[in-house]
Parts: sequence; C-alpha cells; structure tokens
Amino acid sequence: MIRKRLQDLRKKMADNHVDVYYIGTNDYHMSEYISEHFKTLRYFSNFSGSLGSLIVDSENAYLFIDGRYHTQADQETEDTGITVMKLGKKGVLTASEFLIQNYKDKVVAFDGRVVSAAFVKNLIKHGLNVRSIDLYSDIYEDRPALSNDMLYELDKKYTGLTRRQKLDIVKRGLDNKTHIISNLESIAYLLNLRGNDITYTPVFLSHMIFYQNDVYLFISLDRIPEVILSELYDDGVIIRPYESFYNFISSINSSVVLIDENKISYEAYHNINKSNRIYHMRSVVEDMKTIKNKTEIENSKMAHIYDGVAMLRFIKWLKNTDMEGLNEYDVKVKANRFRLEYKAFDLSFNTIVGYNENAAMMHYSPTKEKNSPLHNSGILLIDSGGQYFEGTTDITRTLALGEVSDEIKMYYSLVLQSMFNLARVKFIEGLSGDKLDILARKDLWELGIDYRCGTGHGVGQVLSVHEMPPNIRYQKGSNNGADTPLRPGNIFSDEPGVYFEGRFGIRLENLLLCKYDELNEYGQFLSFEPVTMVPFDLDLIDKRYLDNKTVEILNSYHATVYEKVSPYLNDEEREYLKYITRAI
Amino acid sequence: MIRKRLQDLRKKMADNHVDVYYIGTNDYHMSEYISEHFKTLRYFSNFSGSLGSLIVDSENAYLFIDGRYHTQADQETEDTGITVMKLGKKGVLTASEFLIQNYKDKVVAFDGRVVSAAFVKNLIKHGLNVRSIDLYSDIYEDRPALSNDMLYELDKKYTGLTRRQKLDIVKRGLDNKTHIISNLESIAYLLNLRGNDITYTPVFLSHMIFYQNDVYLFISLDRIPEVILSELYDDGVIIRPYESFYNFISSINSSVVLIDENKISYEAYHNINKSNRIYHMRSVVEDMKTIKNKTEIENSKMAHIYDGVAMLRFIKWLKNTDMEGLNEYDVKVKANRFRLEYKAFDLSFNTIVGYNENAAMMHYSPTKEKNSPLHNSGILLIDSGGQYFEGTTDITRTLALGEVSDEIKMYYSLVLQSMFNLARVKFIEGLSGDKLDILARKDLWELGIDYRCGTGHGVGQVLSVHEMPPNIRYQKGSNNGADTPLRPGNIFSDEPGVYFEGRFGIRLENLLLCKYDELNEYGQFLSFEPVTMVPFDLDLIDKRYLDNKTVEILNSYHATVYEKVSPYLNDEEREYLKYITRAI
Repeated sequence: MIRKRLQDLRKKMADNHVDVYYIGTNDYHMSEYISEHFKTLRYFSNFSGSLGSLIVDSENAYLFIDGRYHTQADQETEDTGITVMKLGKKGVLTASEFLIQNYKDKVVAFDGRVVSAAFVKNLIKHGLNVRSIDLYSDIYEDRPALSNDMLYELDKKYTGLTRRQKLDIVKRGLDNKTHIISNLESIAYLLNLRGNDITYTPVFLSHMIFYQNDVYLFISLDRIPEVILSELYDDGVIIRPYESFYNFISSINSSVVLIDENKISYEAYHNINKSNRIYHMRSVVEDMKTIKNKTEIENSKMAHIYDGVAMLRFIKWLKNTDMEGLNEYDVKVKANRFRLEYKAFDLSFNTIVGYNENAAMMHYSPTKEKNSPLHNSGILLIDSGGQYFEGTTDITRTLALGEVSDEIKMYYSLVLQSMFNLARVKFIEGLSGDKLDILARKDLWELGIDYRCGTGHGVGQVLSVHEMPPNIRYQKGSNNGADTPLRPGNIFSDEPGVYFEGRFGIRLENLLLCKYDELNEYGQFLSFEPVTMVPFDLDLIDKRYLDNKTVEILNSYHATVYEKVSPYLNDEEREYLKYITRAI
Repeated sequence: MIRKRLQDLRKKMADNHVDVYYIGTNDYHMSEYISEHFKTLRYFSNFSGSLGSLIVDSENAYLFIDGRYHTQADQETEDTGITVMKLGKKGVLTASEFLIQNYKDKVVAFDGRVVSAAFVKNLIKHGLNVRSIDLYSDIYEDRPALSNDMLYELDKKYTGLTRRQKLDIVKRGLDNKTHIISNLESIAYLLNLRGNDITYTPVFLSHMIFYQNDVYLFISLDRIPEVILSELYDDGVIIRPYESFYNFISSINSSVVLIDENKISYEAYHNINKSNRIYHMRSVVEDMKTIKNKTEIENSKMAHIYDGVAMLRFIKWLKNTDMEGLNEYDVKVKANRFRLEYKAFDLSFNTIVGYNENAAMMHYSPTKEKNSPLHNSGILLIDSGGQYFEGTTDITRTLALGEVSDEIKMYYSLVLQSMFNLARVKFIEGLSGDKLDILARKDLWELGIDYRCGTGHGVGQVLSVHEMPPNIRYQKGSNNGADTPLRPGNIFSDEPGVYFEGRFGIRLENLLLCKYDELNEYGQFLSFEPVTMVPFDLDLIDKRYLDNKTVEILNSYHATVYEKVSPYLNDEEREYLKYITRAI
C-alpha cells in the first residue's frame, strides 16, 4: 500500500519536474501537536510517531526519526522500501543536512504551508533550489477533513483580562507595526476563545494579523457562534476567510512586519512583499501569555486542587486494588476516568503509564493492544494531566505496587531531593532556566547519572501543556527559551528523573509558580511555589538518602496538600489523604 | 596644576579643530593593568584609580568612574573644575553614551592607539564624527618612558610546549589566515618569553602578526638577549621595530584577517585595508593558554605548595603576634615579604588587607599613608598572590584576630560552604561558568544576600592573575567568557563572599583545576580539584551552620594541605600546620 502511494507521489513529482519531495509533521501553524488532517507523513510512510520527516526522490525514500522511535519506525516501515534514518546514531544527518548534502542541483519541493519559514530559509541559504507545491492532496485518499467545530468563550473570571484589554496591550506594544501570528495558542489566548481542533490542546485553526491598527482574524465565519461574532465585532476584530490569509499577506505594504520564523509557514513568509521591513522575533503575545495574571494564577491553583482530588482517588484505588490480572492500559483508563468524571473537560496529553522497565522509556504510553501486565510488586510511573476551565495540569508520580528494593528507594529519594532542590531556590531576578537547571541535576551528576531531557517546561493556561519560555534545561537549542529570564507569573514543570534501560524509571513532577520574594539592597529576589497538590509515595522514601532540608520541605508540602485538598473529599478519602501525607 | 594642563589641552584641541577629546585608561594593547607611561588620565585629572575616562570639551571636563572610586574621585579632583560622573548612580551615562548623546555634530577625537576598535566602532555606529589624533604627548611634561628592560625565557620545564610547537599549532589552526595579536599575555605565552613592563604581570610591550605563513614580532631589537634572538630566528619569528606595527598592518592585503575588536586598538584596526575580509573573534591563542597542559598543571601545583608555605608562615606569624600598635599596611608588607623571601619572583597583584569594615570594600588596599590600626579582636581579610616560574597564585583567607561574634562565625561558615558547593560539583562537559555560578550563591541567596561581582575568574600561568575564559558569573556581559564551556586544564578562582558596608566583609578563595571525571553512557563528566594549599581558619567555623558534606570535604581538604605542604616546613611550622588542619 505504501509502495503504491509513493509510486503515485513519484508520478506527480515527475509530472511537475520535481526531483525530491519533503514531507514533515507540521500543520499550517507549526503546532507541536497536529490534527488528523495533517498526518500526511503517516499516509505515505505508515510511521505513526509524533515527529519525523520523509524525503522521497525518484529512486528512494528516507524516513528521519529521533531516538524515541528507532524501533517503532523499523516495525512500521517494514516492507515499504523506506530507509529509516535514525537520528542520534553516529554519522546520521538530519533531514535538512541530508537535503543540503545530496540534492544540490535538484529541484527540492514541499508544501510551503506546512514547513516553517526558518526551515526553508536554511535550505535556501545553503544554495538549494526549492519550490513550494502541494503534490499530495490530489492523491491522498480518504483524507480526514479539517475540523469545523464551533469555538467557545473562556469567561473573564478565568482569563482576568478581556479580549479588548489584551488586544489593546498588543496594539500599544506594536505601535503600528504589522504582526503576523499563526501560532494557535497565541490566538486563543488573545481572543479568550477556545476550540476542539487539536486533541488535548483546546485551540482552533486560524491566523491573526495586526495591520494598520486593525486586527484581522482568519477563520471560517460559520465556526463562530452568533454572540461571539458580535462581541468580536465590538472589539474591532475583522473576520476574513481562513483560506484568504496568504492573499492578504501579499497585500501588506510599506510596513514593518514582525514574524517568528519558527512559527510561521514558508508560504506565509514568502508572500510578504519584500519592500516591507521584515523582523524575526518571538511574538510579544508569547511572553504575555506565559506571565499569568492574578486571576489566572488563582484559577490555576484551583485547577490543581481539582486535579489533586482526582489523583488522590486514583492513588487510593491503585494502592488498594489487586494488580494481578490488570495491565498498564487498564490503569491508564482508570486514571483518565478519575479526572474526566470530576472537573476536567479533557486530558492535557496522552497519559503515560509505565511499569518497571517501561518507565525507563521516556515517551512510552500503553495502548489497548500493546501494554504490560501488572503485579503486586515493583513501581509504576504515571505522567498525566487535565484541561480545566481554570487551568492546565501536568503531574508525574512514581508509585510502589508492593515491596521494592533498597536501590529503588535510594533513587526515588534522590529524585525527590533533586526536584525540591530546584523548587526551593530563592534567586536574583534575571536568571534564566539554563542557569537554574544544575540545581535539579547536581545530586544525580554526583553519582554519574543524567537524564537526557530538560528539567522543566512552561505550561499553558487552558492551552498547550508545553509552552516556552520558560524552559529549564542546560542544553543549548535555538529558540527554546532556556535563556529567557524566569518571570513572576510563569508556571512551569520541575521533573527530574532517572532512567535505567531495561530495569526501571523514576520521574517526579510538580508544577511551580514563579513569585516575587524579598526586595532589598541586593535587588529583587524571586522564588517558587508548588501548585501541584498530590502526595509523594512515602513507601518509596528512605530518609537516610535525604538531607534535613528536603525532609522539612517534604513534610511542609504534604501538610499543604492535606490542607488544600481535604475540603473536597469525603470522610474516607480524607482519612486516607491524612495517612499518606503524614510527617516523616 | 590640573587646570593648567586642561587649558594646554584645550589649546591643542582648538589648534587642531577638535571639539571634544577623550582620554581613557588603556595602553597600546588594551591591557587590564597599564605601565606608568600610559597614565595620561592621571596626568590630566589627578585621578589615580585603575579604571576611568575623561571627556574634555571647550568648556567642561567630565571624569567617569565606577562605584569603587566614587569617594576617591571626588577627593582627587577637588578644585580642578572636573565634574565627576558616578557610574551606577541613577541616570548617569557611561562615557560612550555621554559622547553619543552630547556631541552629535562635533569632532570627537582621541589617540586611536589607546582606545579599542570596539569602542570607536560603537561611536561611529551611532553617527559620531570621530578622529584619531595624539594631542597630549607634546604637552605631557616629565612623562615616564616606555620600559626598555630585557626579556627573559621561560624554560620548557615550565611551559611543557616549546615556542615552535606553539607557533605550529597556531599556524595550522589559522590555515594561512592573517591574525593580528596585540594582547600581551597571548604573545608572552606563545613565545615562552616574559618581561617586566607591567607591574605584577610579567609581560612585555609588543605586537604579533601571523601573515602568509610567517610570524612577525614587533619589538625593539635591543630588548632581546642575543641567545633568545637566535632562537627566535631559528623558530622563524621575524623581528620588526615596535613602532612599525601600524605601517605593517597597512600593507596586509588579499587576506582573511582575524582580530579581537576588544583587544586591538582602533588605530591598528583602522589601518587594515578594507579589501581584506576582517573577522572579529576571540583569539585562538587565548583559548590555548587557558587550557593548561600537563607540565603547566604540575608546575602550578608546585607553585601553590610554595605559596602554601609562605601563607602558613604568614598565618602563624599573624596568629601569634600582638596586633596592638600594628596596622593593615604592616601586615600587608609582612605578607608580601613571606612570599618574596621564599620562592616568588613577584606578587601577582597589589595585596588586599582589610580589617573589619574595610574588608567590606571589595577593592580596598591599605597604603603606608592610609590604613587602619589593628587590635586583638575582629577579623582580617587578606587577598594576595605570587608570581612563581611554576605558576601564578591568587588566594583569599579571612582570619580571626581574637574572639569574634556568633554572627561572624555563621557567615564565615556559610561562605565556606558556598565555596565548597562550587568546588565539589561533578558535571556534564559543555557547561559554562554562568550555569555553575548558582552553586556558590544559592545558600547566600536563601538569606537574601548576594555579592556584586563574579564568583570566579581564570588565572594565567606566570601571566596575568585575571584571565578569561573561564568566568564564573551569572551576570551577562559582552565578551566576558562566562558562556564559554569549562575545559579540563582550566585553572580559575572560586571566591564567594559577604560584604556588609560599615561592618565587615568575609571572602574565601581557592583556585580550582578543572579535570576529566567519569566517562559513561550519559557522557563525559568533569570535576574540580583545589590547587590552593592554605588552611581555613577553624576559629571562625561553627559546625552548626555546615552540612555534613561540607564538614567532610573541609577535613579532607585540610588533610591534603598538611600532606602537601608539611615536607617544606621546619618542625615547629609543621607542628603548627598539623594543629590548624585538625579534623573537626
């Protein structure tokens, strides 16, 4: 089937004098997660992972995937004739590097609407002969349609600022410059609207342009309820058809145009008349939305209490249920149910449940078909979160299903201490995540252990569970926000871990709120406050491996969890929470 | 007198159609410390501090100085008519900003040989009309001459690499590009030569140019001993007169020219024919010299043992002498003598001795005329170092002169722990100083205290005591090396402190060597080893304020100090060292 599809594509390529065709995993908005409509890569390669890219030439096809998917990609592309390029292995080039190295005098094409401006500019800089053309839509059979669901409003009691207030702030900041925004989270944030277009992330497909003191929103009119439409009108938002976005861009002239090349499609970028002055920068809206206002903070705290109730019920169930006969997927379903049957209107991402060695795979998630059976022993890692109108949650706990070894207790205690080492810091304003990261790692590094990922990421407000800045990681990366100073109002995750391949994995994650602390002759100090309200598993703690400060902060955290969550529980649940949050 | 001098200068300005004249504190090499010949600022302003700049226009003169010199500058410029511009105070512009803001349509002049290319390029970028002209040499009476002392050689047993080996490495790296070096430390390092031109830093005034596979050294021939001259000839180094440097530069053509705009004069930069392709970058020689080789490391350790002997004798003297009747300057002289009468051929900087509140001023150094009397109580901070053929040292200890308060013990213990928190870290290769800095600060930040300087700086090898990279500081700064990854072979200082104005100051400083640690599946780990071999004052430690790991590492450090230093002591000294390095 894949061979037939690639054959059809090659025919299209030949008809259009294209030598090489590139297919990635983006939508028109460079979103982290994409809707079914955009899963073109899966259609042509059978690869179902969340990130990858396919390069097809007249003879061969190459699938580029990272370490998470090395095994999965081999299995899914079996008998397709596709060569799997395993990024991270020695000598394996990235898709960009591969294009630059191998197709210097060829016509390299792609659909310019689903690749970023930054990606293509890099190819052009290296002398490639590029062309934007959609060669796949015609031959893509039974393609899922774009979502046409109605938008809905997030009330001011959740957002703190009205739509008009937010638009005014941006307009004042732009001072008549033109600003093109394709990023869905930014648009949903600015308009206090939400939608169902992308699983787990309540956004809707649309573009926005601030131009000559007007605000244009590109979206199908019939997706907007009457009452919101008239509000938008009152707030000065001019609606244009979703598809007219690219044409509109062509008409912009004599302006300073601000774009983020990583978050705008090449097609959009290419359509900007070059007589304008174009500047690449992170959108001011992104910084605005990562600094939660007082109302958002209060709501987020409420969301985390609701989440704490659901998680407490889950932990109580897990710890008091015979695991024999159950598997990881059963537990995942159960955990999701506790959230959705209480206050969450959705999950915030695909729940991760990993038993023992499965937890050592950072992105493992069980399915109905593929999972491991559980027993009344060992440890279970659960990383999950919910979408509430009050906020978005993301929390990881590792839990004992029975007796565990001393080694596991040692590592659990160490990860707990590492998490608190970051959580309890007080620091001078101006520090960025790359300078704080070492706090969560130093005790692991002392043993010669590291985790191959960041320590933490920003979390959206009724938006994507990944939002950057802030970003807590020492690893350098372009545009990843790790060098952006932490700001009061940032909410972000603190999630160190240990991962021993084939043996076990332990991760613990709280979300932290960045707050003002002391202001004195040395400057403004900041510190963090945990917003996650879920107990840690005392069955996995060995006090010998904790320093005094960690014991102190753990007991104080547990006391707070009890205080905040217990009012929402019945007597039996409260009794149980009291027990598992006892001081040690 | 100053008024007369400024009057002469204004006459010169008028004769040459110059509206504004700028005088800074650089030599022809953009050195951190300068020789007497270059103290033009002092001649025209009476200001004797190490850093400052003077702007003279037809009416007024402005002296720009930083926080260290606010009081001193007022005193020294009394009755001169000069306005003191106190940097750091609200609304006070830097000299550059002041020039840009106030002299848009004027002719702004300076001696282009003693200002950096970066400084002038910034003025030009902001539209200033600049001109390079020496207006002061003619009217500068009794100006100290340039040094004409002979150079001397540093033997291969100290340098590890021969001159020819070093030159070959640079040539290979340059691959026929042209490289202009005015930095004195880089030249002394490359040639394995030293001189006496700058107090405390054993370098000699000269420039070097790598051009068309040849190496040119610009220096007066008669400063080079016969035997070295013939070696230089054998090693392919072509000698040219010191003054011919600027003319030589004009003759460079059709080349790629590498310069560091911060370490080359504007005159030199300006003379480069712009048909060459000019690139600004940190010199490869600077990175080479900060990565000490095996021989240099062994020698440096030896130098630090010698330094430990001198410091032990000093501490023994201090702790067993009646302080009544003595002052800070007496102690400074005594400390210097212990070094110079043992193995040091020079000091590495002007010794800092501060008693109680004087130690809270970071750059305080007593003189014969200005010092404070000592008593048998309170604390004394001494920050000092020596130049040995084996290496350069820099060490700070704070010592009790008698009974001290509980508060002082608390802060001393905290600073000690902070120093060890950085010293004991094990970390992934690739981390830069700005990401490690938090380790030395977090325990102080927890109390809402900070020190307004970096935690540490690189230290040269028989060169300047300040050498960057590495640089351990969270504060951003252009070109300060804080974002350069730590490398095995780096030797740098670890010197946190607390400074309470008008009360007391505590600083503790060890030099650390960066070394390879474990290599495993997570990557290459690095760690530090202390090279400084001087005990900490147990009279100032209160164990209640130390965590267990700090006590452990302190005892182990003291055991090492005893083991390394005791073989060089007499019985009485050894006995004393044994006592003050006892385990606690």
